[in-house]
Amino acid sequence: MKSFRTELAFELEKRQEFINITAHVEAAVEESGIIEGLCLVNAMHITSSVFIENDEPGLHEDYSNWLSHLAPHQPEQPYQYSRPGEDNADAHLKRQVMGREVVVAITNGMLDFGTWEQIFYGEFDESRSKRVLIKIIGD
Amino acid sequence: MKSFRTELAFELEKRQEFINITAHVEAAVEESGIIEGLCLVNAMHITSSVFIENDEPGLHEDYSNWLSHLAPHQPEQPYQYSRPGEDNADAHLKRQVMGREVVVAITNGMLDFGTWEQIFYGEFDESRSKRVLIKIIGD
Amino acid sequence: MKSFRTELAFELEKRQEFINITAHVEAAVEESGIIEGLCLVNAMHITSSVFIENDEPGLHEDYSNWLSHLAPHQPEQPYQYSRPGEDNADAHLKRQVMGREVVVAITNGMLDFGTWEQIFYGEFDESRSKRVLIKIIGD
Repeated sequence: MKSFRTELAFELEKRQEFINITAHVEAAVEESGIIEGLCLVNAMHITSSVFIENDEPGLHEDYSNWLSHLAPHQPEQPYQYSRPGEDNADAHLKRQVMGREVVVAITNGMLDFGTWEQIFYGEFDESRSKRVLIKIIGD
Repeated sequence: MKSFRTELAFELEKRQEFINITAHVEAAVEESGIIEGLCLVNAMHITSSVFIENDEPGLHEDYSNWLSHLAPHQPEQPYQYSRPGEDNADAHLKRQVMGREVVVAITNGMLDFGTWEQIFYGEFDESRSKRVLIKIIGD
Repeated sequence: MKSFRTELAFELEKRQEFINITAHVEAAVEESGIIEGLCLVNAMHITSSVFIENDEPGLHEDYSNWLSHLAPHQPEQPYQYSRPGEDNADAHLKRQVMGREVVVAITNGMLDFGTWEQIFYGEFDESRSKRVLIKIIGD
């Protein structure tokens, strides 16, 4: 069995932002040399998500609006999350709806995807340096 | 390490529908010959889910009603998802609540499940030909 | 390829409760002897979750309140889930928001985590004996 690990790093500019990371994951699969296996892609932060969706701006706006409705950033007053200086309780809730990770099959050395599947990093907290882990195992 | 890949295909009749696919996944595990490993089962479409639940019709009706409350299909007007001819923004949101995939342990050549666990395909968009990917790795 | 399987068992005291199980999963990884691989941790019940979050009590209270808002336990009347003696439809819905499972990379014989990542078992149904499955594959 082979294994491969790499990290992606981002400097984000907005409080809430979705970034298509498919090409980075494809490059990791190629670099790994793994032909048949599983690829885990996960956010290394607890206020962000990795998820699979369509790359369509209107749809991302719908996600953003819907998540803000399910877990508003303001007012903060309903939230108890009280670590000094924290105002991101809503980001923890949004991340749970969108998920921490995806596991993708690798077949014939490629991500084994349906027609519209693309991998996104979703940030729900303020702009900061953020990381994504890619771990691949297989043969 | 061994690996095995297969697809399930469905012709669905309703806009929103849950199908128990456990027997299909069990058959794939048996066909794979893998005794100890991991089994990934994922929707290949971005308006549908694979999830694990109890096979109880009342519960599925509760999921359906609850998801329709969280992300209504009508009216479409709050949604920005504007690809010509698309009216399924709600289906993308519902799929995110229910998840894209499950990863199940394989132990002694069988799905390693708790008492009530069953695997379902959940469709949230209109009736069309749909696919599910099963990828198994192990020994 | 090596594989390792173990179960955790809990006797829970509250209807809704979050338990940090990170140390148990770390012990399983060490016992497995696996240095590079993937670790699946999943609830074996359909009214509970395994998820990754920060170990901060205020945040857990926020999750609890938010989930109760999204899927109230009372009144039961909107739910159809009618298996005799069941009153836990809400728990099935909450579990779907929080997820059934996590898959974590193992690197250098350790859980490959970001700074704040911790693994939790989340219970949404009444107090009962509950189980979590840990399955690890790798080399």
